[in-house]
Amino acid sequence: MEVETEHEIQRDQEFDLDRTISLSDGIFAFALTLLVLSISVPELTHPSNADLWNHLLDRRSELTSYLISFAVIGAAWIRHHRFCGGLGRVDARFLVMNLCFLATVAFLPYPTEILGLYGGLTGFAFYAGTLALLVLAFAVLNEHAGRAGLLRQPEDPQDRLARRLGTMMAISAFLISIPIAVVVGNWAGYLTWIILPNADKLVFRFGLLKR
Amino acid sequence: MEVETEHEIQRDQEFDLDRTISLSDGIFAFALTLLVLSISVPELTHPSNADLWNHLLDRRSELTSYLISFAVIGAAWIRHHRFCGGLGRVDARFLVMNLCFLATVAFLPYPTEILGLYGGLTGFAFYAGTLALLVLAFAVLNEHAGRAGLLRQPEDPQDRLARRLGTMMAISAFLISIPIAVVVGNWAGYLTWIILPNADKLVFRFGLLKR
Amino acid sequence: MEVETEHEIQRDQEFDLDRTISLSDGIFAFALTLLVLSISVPELTHPSNADLWNHLLDRRSELTSYLISFAVIGAAWIRHHRFCGGLGRVDARFLVMNLCFLATVAFLPYPTEILGLYGGLTGFAFYAGTLALLVLAFAVLNEHAGRAGLLRQPEDPQDRLARRLGTMMAISAFLISIPIAVVVGNWAGYLTWIILPNADKLVFRFGLLKR
Amino acid sequence: MEVETEHEIQRDQEFDLDRTISLSDGIFAFALTLLVLSISVPELTHPSNADLWNHLLDRRSELTSYLISFAVIGAAWIRHHRFCGGLGRVDARFLVMNLCFLATVAFLPYPTEILGLYGGLTGFAFYAGTLALLVLAFAVLNEHAGRAGLLRQPEDPQDRLARRLGTMMAISAFLISIPIAVVVGNWAGYLTWIILPNADKLVFRFGLLKR
Repeated sequence: MEVETEHEIQRDQEFDLDRTISLSDGIFAFALTLLVLSISVPELTHPSNADLWNHLLDRRSELTSYLISFAVIGAAWIRHHRFCGGLGRVDARFLVMNLCFLATVAFLPYPTEILGLYGGLTGFAFYAGTLALLVLAFAVLNEHAGRAGLLRQPEDPQDRLARRLGTMMAISAFLISIPIAVVVGNWAGYLTWIILPNADKLVFRFGLLKR
Repeated sequence: MEVETEHEIQRDQEFDLDRTISLSDGIFAFALTLLVLSISVPELTHPSNADLWNHLLDRRSELTSYLISFAVIGAAWIRHHRFCGGLGRVDARFLVMNLCFLATVAFLPYPTEILGLYGGLTGFAFYAGTLALLVLAFAVLNEHAGRAGLLRQPEDPQDRLARRLGTMMAISAFLISIPIAVVVGNWAGYLTWIILPNADKLVFRFGLLKR
Repeated sequence: MEVETEHEIQRDQEFDLDRTISLSDGIFAFALTLLVLSISVPELTHPSNADLWNHLLDRRSELTSYLISFAVIGAAWIRHHRFCGGLGRVDARFLVMNLCFLATVAFLPYPTEILGLYGGLTGFAFYAGTLALLVLAFAVLNEHAGRAGLLRQPEDPQDRLARRLGTMMAISAFLISIPIAVVVGNWAGYLTWIILPNADKLVFRFGLLKR
Repeated sequence: MEVETEHEIQRDQEFDLDRTISLSDGIFAFALTLLVLSISVPELTHPSNADLWNHLLDRRSELTSYLISFAVIGAAWIRHHRFCGGLGRVDARFLVMNLCFLATVAFLPYPTEILGLYGGLTGFAFYAGTLALLVLAFAVLNEHAGRAGLLRQPEDPQDRLARRLGTMMAISAFLISIPIAVVVGNWAGYLTWIILPNADKLVFRFGLLKR
């Protein structure tokens, strides 16, 4: 009888986890595909070949935003994927926090479009702020999973420290990149992002990957 | 021979259930991601940073609608997810009723956009009415699953009462919020929704969650 | 050794079938959700409540098209779902034919939008023609699965006859509805569709459902 | 103990592979469904039946682009599907490369829309270039899987040669079709694509399919 109940509980937990992962994968896949709508289609009447080509070239910055966002959501998916692989079960709070995290992922096509269309400081700050929120929401999810014992194996104290450091570095990099972009220019802001993942990766190497 | 047949029937039932859940998850994930298209992109030519910022700030009400709808669809998903976890099999009527429920979920981005763009009483009433329909369609689904014996364990009479009470309270809250918004203002209408889930949760605690 | 190989072949076949079903479910789910974009958002500047309400009421025909298309794609999903439940494996041709069928499903939001926006005879004929194509593509899929031995249990000759009759009746109903709409009016065309599924259902009852 | 660990590693690998395939299927399904948005809806006020019909006929080239792109993404899915069926596990680099490949798949609705709207040489070259990139990204994925030992069975040297030849032929066909379209016309460019899959198929028959 008790074995039966235990077996049922496990089935329920696996069901919960499976559906959560399936919903998350769906949202990641759609957000990645929706990004393409952020590249505007030139509206021309019977353009010459050279004309159309120039209008497509004008969309370079929108294409760049597309690629950056694809890389960002892709990287978020890889992290989320690795994180979910370590989960043993989910609870009600996890579902809510995961939805909050997914809301930032699903929102990303909007700042992508703004950044691609208008560039400039406002576009950059809006985009960087959204990324900071995304990283924060993911950190909250990680923190909760560790505390509520949702992981299959308890997190190593050193790993936890490394993860927290990485998160703080990532959030501060996104936030610091905004004043840097104001003072120096957008290119310096992007540079801050390029340095960030490498610094993060160093921490990551001694942290999460050891698991 | 009979065991074989029984095994086949079970496989068919699991297949039906799995595909139904997979279609539902797909629609939930897609509706959640499509919501972002309800936030309009400002159409400007070479805006200054301050200009673009003001235009983004103007979209606060659209962002609010986005967040409310994300929360609503997310909550619907959590309920549907928990409900499907208790299902043992599905029948032809369940498939049709589930599609009716999903039609209200997939429709939600439209009233979201109307509410975000124009606000006002009409937008509020349209949105609240859609939510009432969504809750009704979900209640019908629950009711059918209970009567047709689709649940793995028959519903406790007390649970059923609690569930029905919760549904009626939710639907009346959405409907009552419309005249309240007419008389007092939209903020009072929203307040009705905020009170509703808590009242509902109390019922819920003694009801479905016990399972 | 041979058992191993057989086991591998079965795993490959299950993998093929699973991914085909997963892609199909994805396309059905997105097509169902994309339909909502076919309802146009009124473009107004600071409309009064009554104004907005009238503009929403003007969209009744678009809402009707939305609901019809949701029902059509939903019904197609139920049929496809039941059909896939009987499959034991898929072959290369099946993948191609399934993609052709899915192309008609994924195309449906376009005639839906045309019908909702402009109604009229052209919209009706375009929509009915697409539905005839959809049924034809599904019939080809069924036919191939029967002939290539992809079904877990060979189709009963009587079932096959019933299925073919049902297909022919459905296609002719969609095609005949066009001249009927020309002569009598669109409402008579829709009536032809309403009679069709019932006639089809009678055949269906003695056919596929027996399985 | 060691058996336990081995079992865990296998579970992790299966989890990684399953989620990668699930994300890929989602993106394929969504890209296939998004294509329909590339067909523009005529904007008319109370058009006559003949008027609307003519406007729909004007969209023949957009419909053709829709069908070509559906066939291209469908074919890419079949290849990717077959390729993933042979995978035993994935590694971090594979995830990144797979995302790069999926970025080209998710991008395809954009050149499709350009080609459908404006046709001409620029549209053709843009589309053909994207397809060359798609094939290249897939080839890199294949190459990596072979080298990093991700396949369940190591690739036969003859198969590998055939695969590489096929890739080179496909990429050169897409690239060569651009100058051919310049000199002779777009129809000759399309012809180059029609000849390509057949030449490719011959190589394929003696190559990958043997597995």
